[in-house]
Amino acid sequence: MKKIILDVDTGIDDSLAIAYAVHSPELDILGVTTCFGNVSVEEATRNTLVVLEKLDSTALVIPGAGKPLFRGPTKGSTVEVHGEDGLGGVLESEPTRQAERGHAARFMREQARKHPKQVRIVTVGPLTNLAMAIMQDPEFAGLVDNVIVMGGAVTVPGNVTPHAEANIFADPEAAEYVFRSGIPITLVGLDVTMQTLLPLTEVRAWRNSGTQLADFLAGMTEFYIGAYQQMYPGIEGCALHDPLAVGVAIDPSFVSAVPMHVQVDVEGILSYARTVGDLRSKPAAEPNVKVCIGVDAERFRKHFLSRVLGVGAQMRTV
Amino acid sequence: MKKIILDVDTGIDDSLAIAYAVHSPELDILGVTTCFGNVSVEEATRNTLVVLEKLDSTALVIPGAGKPLFRGPTKGSTVEVHGEDGLGGVLESEPTRQAERGHAARFMREQARKHPKQVRIVTVGPLTNLAMAIMQDPEFAGLVDNVIVMGGAVTVPGNVTPHAEANIFADPEAAEYVFRSGIPITLVGLDVTMQTLLPLTEVRAWRNSGTQLADFLAGMTEFYIGAYQQMYPGIEGCALHDPLAVGVAIDPSFVSAVPMHVQVDVEGILSYARTVGDLRSKPAAEPNVKVCIGVDAERFRKHFLSRVLGVGAQMRTV
Repeated sequence: MKKIILDVDTGIDDSLAIAYAVHSPELDILGVTTCFGNVSVEEATRNTLVVLEKLDSTALVIPGAGKPLFRGPTKGSTVEVHGEDGLGGVLESEPTRQAERGHAARFMREQARKHPKQVRIVTVGPLTNLAMAIMQDPEFAGLVDNVIVMGGAVTVPGNVTPHAEANIFADPEAAEYVFRSGIPITLVGLDVTMQTLLPLTEVRAWRNSGTQLADFLAGMTEFYIGAYQQMYPGIEGCALHDPLAVGVAIDPSFVSAVPMHVQVDVEGILSYARTVGDLRSKPAAEPNVKVCIGVDAERFRKHFLSRVLGVGAQMRTV
Repeated sequence: MKKIILDVDTGIDDSLAIAYAVHSPELDILGVTTCFGNVSVEEATRNTLVVLEKLDSTALVIPGAGKPLFRGPTKGSTVEVHGEDGLGGVLESEPTRQAERGHAARFMREQARKHPKQVRIVTVGPLTNLAMAIMQDPEFAGLVDNVIVMGGAVTVPGNVTPHAEANIFADPEAAEYVFRSGIPITLVGLDVTMQTLLPLTEVRAWRNSGTQLADFLAGMTEFYIGAYQQMYPGIEGCALHDPLAVGVAIDPSFVSAVPMHVQVDVEGILSYARTVGDLRSKPAAEPNVKVCIGVDAERFRKHFLSRVLGVGAQMRTV
C-alpha cells in the first residue's frame, strides 16, 4: 500500500477523487488536508468530513490554508461550477465528526518525517499547503516520495483565463515556489484531464445501485455536468480532473509524462498563472516537473468507475 | 499581379525571400523597406541593395526604423546565425546603388493611399515600420489589402526565448500595436515555418547552375545551415522562415490558417514577447489574426526552389 496525503478543496470532483481513493486498496490514506480554492477552507473541511462520512471512512481531516501565500482571499466565484455548498446542492447537514487540530502543512511535515521517502502527496487544490510545508522545513522536499499535482495547462488552453488553470491561478506564487523547490513533481494538468470524460449516462446509472452514496455522488456530479455543458456545449459529461491525480497515485501507467522545465508566470496580467514549459529541443534549464501529456483515458475511466461507488455498489450494478 | 511591399531586415533568409519575390511574376514589388533586426538598419539597407543588384533588380529600397518603438537598440547578437555582415560572409563590396530618401513608414502610407485596398505588405523583420505607419495615419489600416507577417510562435516554442520568436522579440510593443490595430493580418509564425526545410543537399546543388547569383545564395545559406545545425543537431538543413511569408503572398493555399485572438505579452520576463493566442473553444475576444497552423511544406519547397535562382538558372539545373 502506498501512503498518501490527499490535499483537497472539496468541491465536486474532489469528492469523486476522495471516493476513488478511499475505495482503492492500493492506497493508505494518512490524512486528508484541506485548502481554500473551490470554496473557503472552512467549507472545504466541512465538505470533506461529509464526504468521508458518506464513505464510512474515518480518515483524518486536517485544515490548512485559508488564502493564497502573498495575496488576499481569491474573489472568483465557483458557485456556478460547484454550487452554493460546493457540493452541487446535495449537502443536507453538517458533519458529525470534527476536523483535527493542527495545520495541513505541519501534518505533511510530520508524516514525511515519520515515513521518510514513503509519502506521496496528491494535491487537487491550490499548492498553498504544500508550499508552506516546503518553506517550513528545508529537508521536507527530500523526505517525500513524490507529489502528484492536479494543476496547470502546459500544452493546452486554461480554464480560468485563456492560459491559466484554476488550481494554479488560485495561488500562482505557491505553485512557482513548489516547482522551484526540487520536490519530485508529476503534473496532472488539463493537458491530460481534459482528455478524460465521465459521461452523464454513466452518472445517471449510478442511481441504479440504490445506495445513499451513489445518490449523493450522482446528485453532485449531475450538477457539475450541468455547469460543464454551459462551458463546453455538447459535451454531455465532465472531465475527471481530481480523480485522475488519484488514478496516477494508484497506477502511474495511466499517463505518459515528459520531464520538462516548467515555471509559473507570476508577472503581469496576460500570462498570469500560466504554467510555462520550455518545450524547445535544447531547453535553457534542467527539467523540474514530469508533465503528463498522454493518458489512457478509457482504461482510467473504467478503473475509476469500478471503484468510485465502492465494491458492494459496483457488484449490484454489474 | 499583386502589389507588395516587402519589409526586411536582411539577413540570410531575407535574402532568399527577396530572391523568391523578385523571381515571382505574380508579384509587383512596389518597394523593399528596411528595418533593424537581424542586423542594424544601415546594414539591412546595404545588404538589401547588394542582394537586389545580384538579382538585377531595380526595386526601390527605403530605409526605416533603426530601433524598437519604446526601447533602446536591441543588444542580442545574431552574428552566429547571419554572420558578421548579415549575409554569412559572402558580402564582397558595397552596393553601387543608393537607397531612396524618405522613411519606410511614409512609403507604406503613400503606396496605400495611391493603391487603396490593393497593397499587400509582407513583413519578415520586426513590426516597427508597420506600427509607425499605422500610428501616423488613422486610415492606413483600412487602406491596405492585408499584411503577411513572418513572426510569432502561437502553438510552438520560440527561437529566442522558450516562447518568443525573433521578429516579435525585437519589438514586442510594435507587434502588439499592429495586432490591436484592426489591420488584416496573416501570421506566418514558427508554427508553420519550422515545418519547412531547405535541405543542405539542395543548397549545394545550386552551385551546379554556375551563376554568380547561385553561388552567392548558396554561400550564405550554407553558413545559415551551419548555424542551424548548432541549434538543431541533425537537421541537415534550415527552415524557410522569410521565404514562406513571400510564398503565402504568392499563393495563400500553401498554408491553412485559423482566425484567433492573439496578443503579444509585453509584461515581465518569463513570457516576454510571446504571441499569446486564445485557443479556448469560447475565446474571450474576437479574432484579430489569421494564424497559420498548417503548411503544404513539400509543395511550397518545390515552388520556392523553382523560383529562387531565377528561371534561367533553374532551366540549367533541370
